[in-house]
Amino acid sequence: MNAPSMLRISSRDNALIKDLRRLSQENGAYRKQQRYWAEGDHLCRAALVRGMRPDIAVFAESFLSAARTEYVQAATKNIVVPDALFHEISGLESPASMGYVFALPRDQGLKPGVATVILDRVQDAGNVGSILRSASAFGVEQVLALKGTAALWGSKVLRAGMGAHWGLRLFEGFTFANLDGLDLPIVVTSSHRGEFLHVAQYTNQLPNPCAWVFGHEGQGVCTELEAMARVHIRIAQPGGEESLNVGAAAAICLHASASQAPSVRA
Amino acid sequence: MNAPSMLRISSRDNALIKDLRRLSQENGAYRKQQRYWAEGDHLCRAALVRGMRPDIAVFAESFLSAARTEYVQAATKNIVVPDALFHEISGLESPASMGYVFALPRDQGLKPGVATVILDRVQDAGNVGSILRSASAFGVEQVLALKGTAALWGSKVLRAGMGAHWGLRLFEGFTFANLDGLDLPIVVTSSHRGEFLHVAQYTNQLPNPCAWVFGHEGQGVCTELEAMARVHIRIAQPGGEESLNVGAAAAICLHASASQAPSVRA
Repeated sequence: MNAPSMLRISSRDNALIKDLRRLSQENGAYRKQQRYWAEGDHLCRAALVRGMRPDIAVFAESFLSAARTEYVQAATKNIVVPDALFHEISGLESPASMGYVFALPRDQGLKPGVATVILDRVQDAGNVGSILRSASAFGVEQVLALKGTAALWGSKVLRAGMGAHWGLRLFEGFTFANLDGLDLPIVVTSSHRGEFLHVAQYTNQLPNPCAWVFGHEGQGVCTELEAMARVHIRIAQPGGEESLNVGAAAAICLHASASQAPSVRA
Repeated sequence: MNAPSMLRISSRDNALIKDLRRLSQENGAYRKQQRYWAEGDHLCRAALVRGMRPDIAVFAESFLSAARTEYVQAATKNIVVPDALFHEISGLESPASMGYVFALPRDQGLKPGVATVILDRVQDAGNVGSILRSASAFGVEQVLALKGTAALWGSKVLRAGMGAHWGLRLFEGFTFANLDGLDLPIVVTSSHRGEFLHVAQYTNQLPNPCAWVFGHEGQGVCTELEAMARVHIRIAQPGGEESLNVGAAAAICLHASASQAPSVRA
């Protein structure tokens, strides 16, 4: 392999290594550093496919000879570290063997009138990543994370998102009072009120485009957003009193919206 | 609180403590011990609500005074351990403060002709738990995990299942060759063939009851099960080439099946 220049770092006290460890393991570090850490060849590849260019590529030593040329040629700066040091950087139980560092995207401003998801204090990084993935698959254009939602560019959400981050416009730090610019009907799922989703879907009661709100795993959607909603929807659960996982509920709702869209409707 | 008798253990070398640590942290330990570990007051409560009775209740010392009487009165045997020792037993990043040990249910035999889910080597414990939860919510009666699927009674799957385990008949260790007793049409999701789900749902092309198959996160459903399927279904993804998380796909499919059932259909 005709590899570009490769910087070797083996000290765990190196300033960049310390920064990477923070990016990987501390949820808010990407805001301070204005860059984020995407780990694993699958995720890195997803970024390249989307046309992303990393600032820094980091490889575990044992992986480097097996790494595709495209992985090595993508970044401005390539770094190789001993496997043990890579494991120390990694926030994962089973560390991957490479990672990219990207600059945090600049705030582009809300886009009015396009399919949107609002995350109201969704806590679990796996749930947030799964919702981003479903949002991307079902044609949602932007996702707004209200204060209290898991950090969107944290490494766990990135892993669970499987590349969805690079197909969406993502916003953080909103409160429900900042939603005026959306110019969209708000749709809220509820356990006890509103039309059943499968009925609304086939009687064209789902506004399109709309802003779907998905709420906190325990508390659901806050009362302020409930009050702002134009439509309340419930999901029929004939199995009984179970409440669905928020990622599962989001997938069901976004699929219903997408299959009501004229381009997909049979 | 008029607490029943409480055994105090503080040695990490105690035989029961060692067994609990294995149940909590080793995926296959429940098969050897024929019992499983459910951690966290929320999950333990879900078990009690379903009428389950634990063999052993384990409390972290600092939690005991706050524990509801019902938690303490449920088990045949109550144990209290120092908080540090509870953390050592726990397999969680943020350990809970109590856990129950239940006997593994006896194999009741497949029930023919009822709504069923087949898991074909689904790897991730969070995905498996999420699918069990959706299955329970949407009225599925039994779940068959084929060899290679994450251990159903492992503590991570139990956590993600949020109590669904106690509303389902669960089977492990099947291969696709053991499915004769099911007496059900098999439905497989595919990325490239079959009718779109939202069309099949509203033209009554989904057999009901049926056995839905959900496959390996990377490889999908094995060719043998693909060949056994009566119906192939795809999920329209207008957002592009993304593939959905298997937990999200399962939620969408099971909701579609449930909302086609006569009892739910509008």
